Amino acid sequence: MKVICSKSDLNANLSLVSRAVPSRPNHPILANVLFVADDKTQRVSLTAFDLSLSIQTNFNAQIVEGGSITLPAKLLNDIVTRLQDGEITLLCEAEENEDALVTLTSASGRFQIRGMSAAEFPELPEIKDSEALMLPVSALTEGLRGTLFAASTEEIKQILTGVHLTCDRDLLEFASTDSHRLAVVQIIEETTTEKGENFRVTIPARALKELERMLAIRQENDEVALHIDENQVVFELGEQCLTSRKLDGVYPAYQKLIPDRFSRQITLDRKRLLSGLELVAVLAGQNNIIKFSIDSESQQLSLSVDARDLGSATESMPAQVSGESIDIAFNAKYLMDGLKALPASEIQMQLNESNQPVIFTPLGGIKMTYLVMPVQIRD
Amino acid sequence: MKVICSKSDLNANLSLVSRAVPSRPNHPILANVLFVADDKTQRVSLTAFDLSLSIQTNFNAQIVEGGSITLPAKLLNDIVTRLQDGEITLLCEAEENEDALVTLTSASGRFQIRGMSAAEFPELPEIKDSEALMLPVSALTEGLRGTLFAASTEEIKQILTGVHLTCDRDLLEFASTDSHRLAVVQIIEETTTEKGENFRVTIPARALKELERMLAIRQENDEVALHIDENQVVFELGEQCLTSRKLDGVYPAYQKLIPDRFSRQITLDRKRLLSGLELVAVLAGQNNIIKFSIDSESQQLSLSVDARDLGSATESMPAQVSGESIDIAFNAKYLMDGLKALPASEIQMQLNESNQPVIFTPLGGIKMTYLVMPVQIRD
Repeated sequence: MKVICSKSDLNANLSLVSRAVPSRPNHPILANVLFVADDKTQRVSLTAFDLSLSIQTNFNAQIVEGGSITLPAKLLNDIVTRLQDGEITLLCEAEENEDALVTLTSASGRFQIRGMSAAEFPELPEIKDSEALMLPVSALTEGLRGTLFAASTEEIKQILTGVHLTCDRDLLEFASTDSHRLAVVQIIEETTTEKGENFRVTIPARALKELERMLAIRQENDEVALHIDENQVVFELGEQCLTSRKLDGVYPAYQKLIPDRFSRQITLDRKRLLSGLELVAVLAGQNNIIKFSIDSESQQLSLSVDARDLGSATESMPAQVSGESIDIAFNAKYLMDGLKALPASEIQMQLNESNQPVIFTPLGGIKMTYLVMPVQIRD
Repeated sequence: MKVICSKSDLNANLSLVSRAVPSRPNHPILANVLFVADDKTQRVSLTAFDLSLSIQTNFNAQIVEGGSITLPAKLLNDIVTRLQDGEITLLCEAEENEDALVTLTSASGRFQIRGMSAAEFPELPEIKDSEALMLPVSALTEGLRGTLFAASTEEIKQILTGVHLTCDRDLLEFASTDSHRLAVVQIIEETTTEKGENFRVTIPARALKELERMLAIRQENDEVALHIDENQVVFELGEQCLTSRKLDGVYPAYQKLIPDRFSRQITLDRKRLLSGLELVAVLAGQNNIIKFSIDSESQQLSLSVDARDLGSATESMPAQVSGESIDIAFNAKYLMDGLKALPASEIQMQLNESNQPVIFTPLGGIKMTYLVMPVQIRD
């Protein structure tokens, strides 16, 4: 194999796929990136795979001699990042050997890196030519931004470590919950499916976080092709491709948790509420509980904390309150997470009683619902 | 005590003194900042002290009623940072009480914080009216920048955890060593002492790092007054003051370590050498040893590393070499630290044999010497 390419191309593509390399691989080959040079197409493909998530990318290069090899991702990345801009030559003369030496030459330097045969690299799951669902980058980005943060990070409830995606006719719905809070984003997309097929799938948040990163460098009106089969999902974004296993199990019937009607409604400035929470949370200590005093008469919300040993804090802000005054308390972390993700300058808080679920929605923009369970008020 | 001040004044001054608050105080009072409001001068002074280092600062405020109290530095800082800009009122009605409550009021919020009596705060050491040495900010900044990084971080050899400062007539010299490398900066200052007094003092690097930070927001031609007595040093910078205990013990006679003459001299581009080291160091592994092959014929320097299990790396760069070719090896970390601190685009490397000390100096600019001991070359 002999490949001549630009430092910047190799660097950008290597950084991208390296995200799928596990930090603690179970097997040495999983720490490597698969490097395939095709002399017919004059293209290089890079792949990293942790047995659940894979990222693949392609770029143009001068392929003097085709071939394939795997190389340690971190080491190669560390070298290429630090090279000066310019041409790089990669040469491997006995790539079938168990530990083949690859020579990387730049204008001023020469590196020899021990690779492993491409034959050792695990095969990526193939999707049997299923129909592709075409999704606009903007819809996918909005859906992920509004839900990824609320997925569980605890491996015990595996199904909750994913984002649940539902497509029903023109409605695309994203949902995530860690059982303390729930985030739902609904997007109306006329072109979601070609044949109008419906589906439900739960995809690991880890894979979707990488997808979100890959979407960030795309144009808003680009499209992403989504293929789904029994065990896998595949997202195709131009030259790049991300695959992930699906999460098994039944996703909770979250729609039932959202109340139909509310007796109280409060309109608030999102940033003002967020900075108020951050301020009084300084005194909230470990349990992180903040009391909301919603005052209908003065049209005001007061946030307060009373930490007996440290002191106390109160911060007030204007609020459009409809319904009776009420005191209700929350874990500040859950609120702040949701407020950061709500894409609007004004938000609505809707609730019934102080022991019943509360929802936050943006005023205008996308349709997002963030549900939080209140906590009991300490006396 | 009742004080009205601006959020930005309190915030800036509190952040500054908080740097002297120990992260793990031996006594609760040391986690507090001393707050003194003087109704005659209409000024507030803030002080933090970890029993070795103190930082004090003063600012204007409206003092309705004078008084003093200590408040938890981290908590107060966390609150004030997050407040909206505007006026703040601090009120304490019984500041002599053992745990007095201080009320902080902003436009929209109210905080009560438990303070401790100012009488509990340790007294700062006083310097008996010694003569002040006036030092320009620029000289002090250059001296610290060129030496602070090389001080030891190991508490075993206490004296090496400081920077040694010598004043001999017009020559101000800074030196630091951790016994693996030595950094010396010499500055000619005509106005160093009023009476031409000489001194030698070793000051803890921790205190000087804070001084460096305080200098960064000063004008280059400002002056700093330095007072020294038997146990303490005091730096006065306008409204701010930093005190530190001196380090006891005899500082090593470092000047003897620097060879008088060299048989080889190499001129190099500093950034090129630094990026070359960073590149080949990727393959250097834990021991971090990099070989320099200095070639007099080709007027070239090659850096190389051979890590048998990972691979090998070579990077070459032009060099003006006078003297015979030689191979010599270094710990990359020590070289990189020094190269980052050398304030010049071109540097000179001077050496005799591969087992003798090597010095690096800037070409032009300040007079700095960075000495590194080579390591044995592995075969």
